Parts: sequence; structure tokens; C-alpha cells
Amino acid sequence: LFVGGHPLAGKELSGFENADARLFENARYALTPLAPDHPADGRVKAFSQLLEALGARPFLCDASAHDRAVAYLSHLPQLLSTGLASLIAEQSAEDFLPLELAASGFRDVTRLAESPYALWRDICLTNIENIQSALELLIEKLQAVKL
Amino acid sequence: LFVGGHPLAGKELSGFENADARLFENARYALTPLAPDHPADGRVKAFSQLLEALGARPFLCDASAHDRAVAYLSHLPQLLSTGLASLIAEQSAEDFLPLELAASGFRDVTRLAESPYALWRDICLTNIENIQSALELLIEKLQAVKL
Repeated sequence: LFVGGHPLAGKELSGFENADARLFENARYALTPLAPDHPADGRVKAFSQLLEALGARPFLCDASAHDRAVAYLSHLPQLLSTGLASLIAEQSAEDFLPLELAASGFRDVTRLAESPYALWRDICLTNIENIQSALELLIEKLQAVKL
Repeated sequence: LFVGGHPLAGKELSGFENADARLFENARYALTPLAPDHPADGRVKAFSQLLEALGARPFLCDASAHDRAVAYLSHLPQLLSTGLASLIAEQSAEDFLPLELAASGFRDVTRLAESPYALWRDICLTNIENIQSALELLIEKLQAVKL
């Protein structure tokens, strides 16, 4: 029995010193059983109960719907955040940019950019097709804003 | 004497019921005096002191450096946040997207999208050139990620 899954919780900072015992509290935990009868399997139920004991909320979902959703809800926000932070670093190096003018909107949109690159590279490599089409649609949208 | 300026503080929700007496606490307040001798003017000093009394930190800055900076630090984050939220709404309407899979990264990147459209339309219209070139560079960056 293989049941794919992961918590929808995390922090931009890794390492033991950034651990948080309440990280899973009320967080979703995606479970993507491979066969239609898996949710009824006692072992899946036992695992769901373990997750609930940690404070998480298990969410069962088909793997392909999951992958498309996280491209939009997680991977695209991550790439936008990193892209924006990287652009601002370049612009700031090229020409004076008074970073004192950054406020809470900047902080929120770029928080994800602090996440470890290696982790996100690996995540993105598992979902290339969905990410490509999400990026394509977003670029089209930004191009429409620009005109 | 005209001294342009604005606080770098705000909320995505407007209206009296969302007022916050501590909104200016430690927030930057940009001031863009029009002439080089304005910062020495007693009236500018008096206004700065008023801002400090509210808990804000005045920041004097040349108007054109200010406009270029806020294109990257404020207007671009706003447009990205709105673009992403709008794309996800469309995708969700078009095909099933389990929004339960959204987590804190999604929340942060899309918080700004809740800001009132009319306010941001007016802000963006005052800074079109800087926003156009910032958007252009970001699109190039996203296109490089996509390949």
C-alpha cells in the first residue's frame, strides 16, 4: 500500500532551531490514495487518525487534481515571490533603489522567496507540466495588464 | 510650499470598522520635497515632528527615485497578487481546483489582491512608465523560468 501525501504547512526557514510544535495545528494534510478502495483501508484510516492527533486535517484528493491545484496555489506563488525578490535585488544593484520604501505588501509577497532553493527546485521538477501552463497563463495576464 | 508624501502603511480592508490606531507605528512615511532647500524649511520640520508623534518614521527621498522604487516594491507586488488571484479564480471556475490545498504561501502572496480596485487603479495610473518597465522585466524573468 502506498498513499502519497504531505502537509500543507511549512516555513520559509528550515532547521531544528526553527521548529514549531504547533506547525500542523489546523493545517491541511493532503492524501492521494492510488486506488479507489484505499480510503477504506484500515491502514489509511489509522494514518488519518495519527494526523488528526497532531492537529492536522486530512484531505483526500485524486493525485492529478492535487498536482494541478498545487501548481496554482503553491508552486506559482513560490516562483512569483522568488522572481520578484530576484528582480528587486538586480535593480537595486544596478541603480539606487531606496529599499526603505518597502512596506508590508512587499514583505508578504516576498516571504516565500526566503525558502531554501534546493527544496523548491526538487518540488518544481516533479510538476513541470502543470507549472509551465500556469506560468504561461500568468504571463499572458501580466502582458494584458502592461498594455 | 508643497511637500508630496504618503505613509508606507495600509491594509487590504478599508472603512472605519477596519481602522487601527497603531497603523503608523514604526511605519515609514515618505516625503518628497520639491526643492533642495525644502527639508530645512520650518514647516517641513514641523510636519515631520507631527509624523514622529504618530509613531511613523519620516523618510526624505527624491520624487523620481521614490516613483521607481515603489513600482518595484509596491505596485508590482500588488499587480502580481491580483493577477495570481484572478488566474486562480478563472481556473477554479473552468475546472475543479481543490482550494482546500491552499496554504500560508498562497494566503501571503494573494493578501494584497483584496485591496480596493479603484484605489489601486488610481495609484497605478500615476506611475505608468515605471510600472511598465518593472512588469516587462518580471515577465522576462518568468519566461526564463518557464524554459
